[in-house]
Amino acid sequence: MLKLFYAVGSCAVASHIALEEAGAAYEAVRLDLRAGDQGKPDYLAINPKARVPALATDRGVLTENPAILAFVAQSHPSARLAPLDDAFAFGRIQAFNSYLCSTVHVAHAHGLRAYRWADDPGAMAEMRRKVPQNVAECFGLIERTMFEGPWVMGERYSICDPYLFTVAGWIQNDGVDPTRFPKVWDHQQRMKQRPAVDKVLTLYRS
Amino acid sequence: MLKLFYAVGSCAVASHIALEEAGAAYEAVRLDLRAGDQGKPDYLAINPKARVPALATDRGVLTENPAILAFVAQSHPSARLAPLDDAFAFGRIQAFNSYLCSTVHVAHAHGLRAYRWADDPGAMAEMRRKVPQNVAECFGLIERTMFEGPWVMGERYSICDPYLFTVAGWIQNDGVDPTRFPKVWDHQQRMKQRPAVDKVLTLYRS
Ligand SMILES: N[C@@H](CCC(=O)N[C@@H](CS)C(=O)NCC(=O)O)C(=O)O
Ligand SMILES: N[C@@H](CCC(=O)N[C@@H](CS)C(=O)NCC(=O)O)C(=O)O
Repeated sequence: MLKLFYAVGSCAVASHIALEEAGAAYEAVRLDLRAGDQGKPDYLAINPKARVPALATDRGVLTENPAILAFVAQSHPSARLAPLDDAFAFGRIQAFNSYLCSTVHVAHAHGLRAYRWADDPGAMAEMRRKVPQNVAECFGLIERTMFEGPWVMGERYSICDPYLFTVAGWIQNDGVDPTRFPKVWDHQQRMKQRPAVDKVLTLYRS
Repeated sequence: MLKLFYAVGSCAVASHIALEEAGAAYEAVRLDLRAGDQGKPDYLAINPKARVPALATDRGVLTENPAILAFVAQSHPSARLAPLDDAFAFGRIQAFNSYLCSTVHVAHAHGLRAYRWADDPGAMAEMRRKVPQNVAECFGLIERTMFEGPWVMGERYSICDPYLFTVAGWIQNDGVDPTRFPKVWDHQQRMKQRPAVDKVLTLYRS
């Protein structure tokens, strides 16, 4: 059975929602990031990067949201979470998720995780200061040039939707008014009405 | 016909090599990043993110190396650049490429592109100072836990190889001795012997 390693408040919620939407048989294992569970030897044996999410399968462990999301879609084809026979349409999904992973999540991480890229407190404060501007720029671009509507890729819900939902859920705490991005904001509200999303969020609140 | 927008010295070389390895019919269009070509209106109409690579297809534009690489593999199945009927094996490829994109490339970018995340010159200098440490940590992890050998994913050459080759090619300039990572170093040398790699590198030198 699949085993998802996750933490409350983390980007793992994206992969978690996708597993629910796919109707996958999986177990969810919670880590406490503040307690440092991600750096303990047991977990490093699973994911030496010391991050969540990680998805243990009977063939080994997968990490990185864009990879786990694509795996969930490909291994649960009846859930139709990604176009599996259309390399271009699949490529657009990977492009969107790769942007979230490499640029948008990273822009956000310069707030809480500034210490990854600097040791000096002044430099970290300066990086935190620039977070709202960078995050707002990313969401401006998503709103204007990427979001098709009603779902990220258009009429069909896909593995882009839980990932956008996750990262967009952080921007208010990043100091950005989410209502500046009406399509993304509306998407947030509609996502919360999906049973799979509600189920995962309930788990994260408990 | 496919059209790849690239720039010398950029991460686009990864997608470029993959197109060559696939035997794809494509045209390569060079941008000059120092001259600011990536920010000009013509190019923003192609890729509003103002970055390379971008791959124009007859159905639209794809961006982000992990997405372009997967697209090249899926749309040229006879080149066998990725396992296309095995969701787990494909997921491992996406996990590796997503790590390069979201963590390793980003660690490197804090050198030349520190201004993305800070405006203050002192903060930028501090970020640059930490680049060798972060880049070396990433390559330590790749060497110890990800690289199967002789190719990234084991016996079969895949879309991970040109991407690793590209990012590993930067680390000496990042202030990291590449010979500290013998498997990655040996991979660099073997990559240069491949005709597809040689062809692309020749173009980048001209
Ligand atoms: N590129 C990775 C990023 C994973 C990541 O950074 N996860 C964060 C939580 S959002 C984490 O585990 N942080 C723990 C730490 O930094 O110690 C992905 O998309 O899966
Ligand atoms: N996540 C993107 C990153 C693309 C990227 O940052 N490209 C750089 C070259 S390595 C670029 O175009 N930089 C131009 C600039 O920052 O103005 C990918 O993997 O394709």
